[in-house]
Amino acid sequence: MNYSIIAYIIGSILKLEAVFMLLPCITALIYQEQSGFAFLITMVICLIIGFLLTIKKTGNKVFHAKEGFVTVALSWLILSIAGAAPFVISGSIPDPVDALFETVSGFTTTGSSILSDVEALSHCMLFWRSFTHWIGGMGVLVFILCLLPLTGGYHMNLMKAESPGPSVNRLVPKVQSTAKILYTIYLGMTLLQILLLLIGKMPLFDTLCITFGTAGTGGFGIKNSSIAGYSTYIQVIVTIFMILFGINFNVYFLLLTRKFTQAFKHEEVRYYLGIIAFSTIIIALNTKHLFQNIGTAFQQSAFQVGSIITTTGYSTTDFNQWPALSKTILVLLMFIGACAGSTGGGFKVSRLIILCKTARKELTLCLHPNAVKKVKMDGKAIPHEVVRTTNIFLFVYVLVFGLSVLLISIDNFDLTTNFTAVAATFNNIGPGLEMVGPTQNFGLFSHFSKCVLIFDMLAGRLEIFPLLILFKKDTWKKF
Amino acid sequence: MNYSIIAYIIGSILKLEAVFMLLPCITALIYQEQSGFAFLITMVICLIIGFLLTIKKTGNKVFHAKEGFVTVALSWLILSIAGAAPFVISGSIPDPVDALFETVSGFTTTGSSILSDVEALSHCMLFWRSFTHWIGGMGVLVFILCLLPLTGGYHMNLMKAESPGPSVNRLVPKVQSTAKILYTIYLGMTLLQILLLLIGKMPLFDTLCITFGTAGTGGFGIKNSSIAGYSTYIQVIVTIFMILFGINFNVYFLLLTRKFTQAFKHEEVRYYLGIIAFSTIIIALNTKHLFQNIGTAFQQSAFQVGSIITTTGYSTTDFNQWPALSKTILVLLMFIGACAGSTGGGFKVSRLIILCKTARKELTLCLHPNAVKKVKMDGKAIPHEVVRTTNIFLFVYVLVFGLSVLLISIDNFDLTTNFTAVAATFNNIGPGLEMVGPTQNFGLFSHFSKCVLIFDMLAGRLEIFPLLILFKKDTWKKF
Repeated sequence: MNYSIIAYIIGSILKLEAVFMLLPCITALIYQEQSGFAFLITMVICLIIGFLLTIKKTGNKVFHAKEGFVTVALSWLILSIAGAAPFVISGSIPDPVDALFETVSGFTTTGSSILSDVEALSHCMLFWRSFTHWIGGMGVLVFILCLLPLTGGYHMNLMKAESPGPSVNRLVPKVQSTAKILYTIYLGMTLLQILLLLIGKMPLFDTLCITFGTAGTGGFGIKNSSIAGYSTYIQVIVTIFMILFGINFNVYFLLLTRKFTQAFKHEEVRYYLGIIAFSTIIIALNTKHLFQNIGTAFQQSAFQVGSIITTTGYSTTDFNQWPALSKTILVLLMFIGACAGSTGGGFKVSRLIILCKTARKELTLCLHPNAVKKVKMDGKAIPHEVVRTTNIFLFVYVLVFGLSVLLISIDNFDLTTNFTAVAATFNNIGPGLEMVGPTQNFGLFSHFSKCVLIFDMLAGRLEIFPLLILFKKDTWKKF
Repeated sequence: MNYSIIAYIIGSILKLEAVFMLLPCITALIYQEQSGFAFLITMVICLIIGFLLTIKKTGNKVFHAKEGFVTVALSWLILSIAGAAPFVISGSIPDPVDALFETVSGFTTTGSSILSDVEALSHCMLFWRSFTHWIGGMGVLVFILCLLPLTGGYHMNLMKAESPGPSVNRLVPKVQSTAKILYTIYLGMTLLQILLLLIGKMPLFDTLCITFGTAGTGGFGIKNSSIAGYSTYIQVIVTIFMILFGINFNVYFLLLTRKFTQAFKHEEVRYYLGIIAFSTIIIALNTKHLFQNIGTAFQQSAFQVGSIITTTGYSTTDFNQWPALSKTILVLLMFIGACAGSTGGGFKVSRLIILCKTARKELTLCLHPNAVKKVKMDGKAIPHEVVRTTNIFLFVYVLVFGLSVLLISIDNFDLTTNFTAVAATFNNIGPGLEMVGPTQNFGLFSHFSKCVLIFDMLAGRLEIFPLLILFKKDTWKKF
């Protein structure tokens, strides 16, 4: 294990986080809030530790897949601990486990909260809470890649470990340039949404926070009623952008480089939009008696479907009261999740497609044992390695899921609460059903269960393997 | 598709079923029950159709994997339809869908019932209901193999399609002899249990019915209180035999042939017994306040764990009232299931082991991308094909599960009811939780949902692929 390079990257992350904290500091200045000092204190600590860790230029350039996984896992953990500090220091969320839960929920773009009264938080805290979504959405290490003058082969390993989805595409030959393109698209779309929400006469502060939550597919609201209190125009804009941020960013790159046919033929995105359309129609028809007219039913249904499949987790209505069919569709969408290479979480549409195609091939093999058939996606054969890791991912996903439900059942809440609590955190969504439904929060769980759910949120965002590797003895051996 | 051989086998199945129905006829004679005529009528119809289908000796001996799958799926369907006829004809269960549900539940050794008052059925009906468990436990086609003078390569294909588990071991070079050995062990253990129950002063009729349910890991009781009304001695005997019938039958063959070390080192069985011991201890400690003393808690816990992991589904207590931790363990055991090559259902312990080992290998590959490591079980490398089909099985299992929950949610019951209803039928267990808990029944569902659950029971027993193949257009093409 090459510890010196890991320390160097973590140091850079801490320095970067200190810079990010300037924004809530400015917010505190504008609103004249005392709690802003908590950010100042944290910034100083982060900068000191950050400088100490990066003071020594590392000579050893060895950086394998192993270091990539460990760096990503540790970075996210340290990022979250540092990010939780202001909540504890200011007394906004005095309990350290609660503060860590809230911050991990922010960075992993989950949006599950332990707060029963969000509106009691000061503006700078609300801003930081939402801003963690934006940072976590695209991934911090991708950001580091854009900034740090690192050389060598480790970029790909970092990106592989942090990016969601079964395989990573380099848009351009250099990983660093790919990262820059991704962040530019991300920033551009964020600005566009801010603009459109401001046109809808949303206050600037609300606009920024809600946009961060949408862009990162996070879901922290700044009102206790989430998005329900805003105008229909704003709800529609948020719906559209949630769905847009759940699309594979490769498609935007294809559009920007005028490869329109390739973009429109992108299989994952077509299925993703198809699933959204289909679910919206069924739920609208199933819940139409709950709304004034069918138009509202469609709008509300589209909002909720978009919110859940992209794993954002905003809500405009208490879907816990919906009929079982609609609730079941939402629960299934929780697992499907958004596209690979987007800011969304969940199992990912592309993995589902790969597995469906593999299963279909297996059925054909039952009928014709000697048939030779390749599983293809977007016209190209899927490499055997991707099929294998996707299959194993499914099993590890099911395993971690089952164990988590078992562990939090010690708190003795009902099965639906436990099941959807894990589903909501592990898939980085936010609200579940019953006692963790959209009008409830995660504050009821014990510290132990909260730690399990913190693990689930991180495992969901980093797609499990980087976190599991931390627990393997083999990992910490000197090489 | 070689239709003539399929017709021939199905004809034999019908003739065999007519022979099996002699037993409830005798029961009706003993208890002087009019409803026995329903069996006579069904027998005559089965015999006529059976003779018509087998009158022509088939010349075409081509019998591939494809024919194996289709034959197994169709045989089970026709077996169930014929088996349901006496219930409808006698008016015991007048609704044909209900009668089919009950019979499929019998043959697939599920044990889910649509009856709210079991004790209202006549003796011959109760006998037939329990006897279907015994027939379905080891598989009808395995039985046919012992009886029919078939020659050619199709035995293995039939057995492959009907036997549960990721791979089929021939105990001896000839498939037919393997089938005979399996049935001999099955019969021997059944007789032993009957003997032990009779020693416990259980009435003969009860002994036969309960033993059939245990041997097939079915779970139909003949009392509304299932096994709760019997003595502790009887409950303990049933516990032990449920667990014994969930063990891979290969182990019994190894014991019979005095290969003791091989038998005791059998990985699947060791894990299976380990899971039972672990779950029993946790549940006993978790529920001890519900029982008079810790001994009773252990006995009840062992009974329920044995009943659920072997997918039998007998109950001695309403575990729907247990704490969430115990209920969650039971739900997880529902999915794990018994050993491959046993009469139990579920996902199977061996599949779980294979997937755990594959996942562990993948973690090692993350750390050392060039490592060469084989996944082994019982000291032998697992063939790549078995790993692949196990992985795909998991996905298809999850897919069918999710779709089933979605479809039955149209009935608008709560999520836990829907989830455990599918879990209980798809894994061939019997009772679920909430509205399908041990003191409830499946009568509340609509016809449509019952059909979905009938599909799930058959898919669970035949391990999905044979049933899915029926829906593939390619299957029905002439070759």
